[in-house]
Amino acid sequence: MITLLTDFGAGSEYVGALHLVLAASCPGRERIDLAHDIPPGDVRLGALTLARLAPLLPAAVHLAVVDPGVGGDRRAAAVALVGGGALVGPDNGLLGPAALALGAAEAVALHPPAPGTPATFHGRDLFAPAAARLAAGERLGDLGVPFDPAELLAPDLPDPRVAAGELTAPIVAIDRFGNLQLLAGRADLDAAGFTAGDRIHAAVSHHGVAGDRRHPATVCRAFTDAAHKGMLVHIDSHGMVAVAVNGGSAAQRMGATAGQAVTLGRWTPS
Amino acid sequence: MITLLTDFGAGSEYVGALHLVLAASCPGRERIDLAHDIPPGDVRLGALTLARLAPLLPAAVHLAVVDPGVGGDRRAAAVALVGGGALVGPDNGLLGPAALALGAAEAVALHPPAPGTPATFHGRDLFAPAAARLAAGERLGDLGVPFDPAELLAPDLPDPRVAAGELTAPIVAIDRFGNLQLLAGRADLDAAGFTAGDRIHAAVSHHGVAGDRRHPATVCRAFTDAAHKGMLVHIDSHGMVAVAVNGGSAAQRMGATAGQAVTLGRWTPS
Amino acid sequence: MITLLTDFGAGSEYVGALHLVLAASCPGRERIDLAHDIPPGDVRLGALTLARLAPLLPAAVHLAVVDPGVGGDRRAAAVALVGGGALVGPDNGLLGPAALALGAAEAVALHPPAPGTPATFHGRDLFAPAAARLAAGERLGDLGVPFDPAELLAPDLPDPRVAAGELTAPIVAIDRFGNLQLLAGRADLDAAGFTAGDRIHAAVSHHGVAGDRRHPATVCRAFTDAAHKGMLVHIDSHGMVAVAVNGGSAAQRMGATAGQAVTLGRWTPS
Repeated sequence: MITLLTDFGAGSEYVGALHLVLAASCPGRERIDLAHDIPPGDVRLGALTLARLAPLLPAAVHLAVVDPGVGGDRRAAAVALVGGGALVGPDNGLLGPAALALGAAEAVALHPPAPGTPATFHGRDLFAPAAARLAAGERLGDLGVPFDPAELLAPDLPDPRVAAGELTAPIVAIDRFGNLQLLAGRADLDAAGFTAGDRIHAAVSHHGVAGDRRHPATVCRAFTDAAHKGMLVHIDSHGMVAVAVNGGSAAQRMGATAGQAVTLGRWTPS
Repeated sequence: MITLLTDFGAGSEYVGALHLVLAASCPGRERIDLAHDIPPGDVRLGALTLARLAPLLPAAVHLAVVDPGVGGDRRAAAVALVGGGALVGPDNGLLGPAALALGAAEAVALHPPAPGTPATFHGRDLFAPAAARLAAGERLGDLGVPFDPAELLAPDLPDPRVAAGELTAPIVAIDRFGNLQLLAGRADLDAAGFTAGDRIHAAVSHHGVAGDRRHPATVCRAFTDAAHKGMLVHIDSHGMVAVAVNGGSAAQRMGATAGQAVTLGRWTPS
Repeated sequence: MITLLTDFGAGSEYVGALHLVLAASCPGRERIDLAHDIPPGDVRLGALTLARLAPLLPAAVHLAVVDPGVGGDRRAAAVALVGGGALVGPDNGLLGPAALALGAAEAVALHPPAPGTPATFHGRDLFAPAAARLAAGERLGDLGVPFDPAELLAPDLPDPRVAAGELTAPIVAIDRFGNLQLLAGRADLDAAGFTAGDRIHAAVSHHGVAGDRRHPATVCRAFTDAAHKGMLVHIDSHGMVAVAVNGGSAAQRMGATAGQAVTLGRWTPS
């Protein structure tokens, strides 16, 4: 099987081109779209998403293209995984977390495409052909020059700022429902001293300074534990701290956008 | 075959996760995406869409997840269909119309997921695994506790308000072309006395009161029967009354949004 | 294999309906989504996209539906290709460039659907069934009435306006990254005298008159040859002249929208 993860947008001809290259080389081989709505150039979210999803199919060839540096000097990589699968994509941080999660056995820097190949669509012209060759059974060593998989880049994943009664973490993803996923986990919520049922507040913060607009929220296990249209903070299905509104959009209520952070604090009437 | 219908958004990692779970359990089994752009939490449109599309593949396992009450006390259901297929999803109204259209033979309330399972993504953790088990040939009875399929919830589908020369019905869907689909059928249009060629008007209505802005429209069979950029009212490809603009967007022209209703009336110069 | 290209929007039930019709008729047959985010009714972009992508699978049945004239008197066509594949869709310009690129052997005007068939969704009711029949091995001649494939319509593709030091061309596509693809190729860029490294400017133009707002840009080979957030003009992966911003959106910076044109000129300080 071959999986695909990109920032090309679902339904775009760029995704179609990857599928065509793979189908032409490996007819009948099962292909699975992991995600195509990664925000343009958001290598960090692409890396986290790949690391979450790829372990569900450890023996597949995982083709990932979030590649703002295409045509530049970033390394193009293919990685053989311990479980028999592979990762293929730019070595710009996108593959690091998945390689860590799945175990990297070997890595190669892909041979550059033939002279005259366009410099702006390595997904179609370099990575998909490499993925197809691996899926067809070629050896990793035939695709490029070996390097130590420990050298694979990882994205910048800053620790949240945690104190008793306060937690500040970057927004790492905003989904279609307006849920805000933060770069923090259960241990961070615990370290801040927040437990289920606590009344807290959430505020968008800029450069580490919490904004004036504080929204009351409850620490919950599930959306439906909060009142209808009530804001909640919970551990989401990937184990990350998330801010949501039951039956509504936390992003809209808070006016939150990607690139901002959220500060959670103990609720004190103002 | 397994079909998927959700409100997760095309290209989202949530859709990817469902496909991964199904592919890991049932490699090589054909999967078909019915729709993923159901507006968030719009159980009614999800239910109508499922009931329209599922009959095209009556023997498939249809996995449907529009689940605003996930983690709460709504029932999780699997339904065996008379034609050999099945429905799997939350029993919040989503499955009712399709079960009615296809004929339900048996139903079970799915056994809850293991303790410690996240409470916010039953699509991945409960429904997709259940669909995979059915697709792999397991018996419905092994998946949960039987209940009478006649108990399956149905969404609220209010009748349109029809009088001679007037028809008011909720907007049930707005598509990418700006076409407004109303919760009314050919019989309602007939009952209002509108026939092909009639000059009428259309207005967005709030709480049953038609707005001031009345748009001239013609009752037509096809888009191209109206003038270019002309508004038309027609019976759409699902047999529903729809408002459209030939070569344009009715939603944009009328400023219509989901949750509103449309009133059609005989044209009288104002 | 069967490919699908539409302006229905990824994740829409209309795309789902096409897949269902194909899956019901041709179970197990590989289906590939080429693109579904063609702007509504943009026959020209649909035609160019089909002509780019279909040659990667010349023996497939290519189902294409961008059909603003559905239900009117435009011809519905199926075309047998020299390489063994076929094109199926409305003869409104959508199929012309692909037929030219791949070589058309025969063409038929599809028999109209049965009386009573809805007039607004020929994708589901006419074109997908025809594509399924071809994929299942039926002969083209059984599907309709032969016509000379040289009669297939082509979209309007005006030549760019080129002079020494100036190039004006319509924006043909704006992708998710905000890249502007122009209806001009490498030869046009050469004819204007622009070569890699040149400092030029780009301006949105209306009705052939360049706007006041001129944006400095560099002629480059790849995004990363420009400064971070710098604007560049390059030959994109389809051989077309494109305007981009390295790490940003050219559409947003220029306020450009589909239907406008872009004028490139030699940079002179103003």
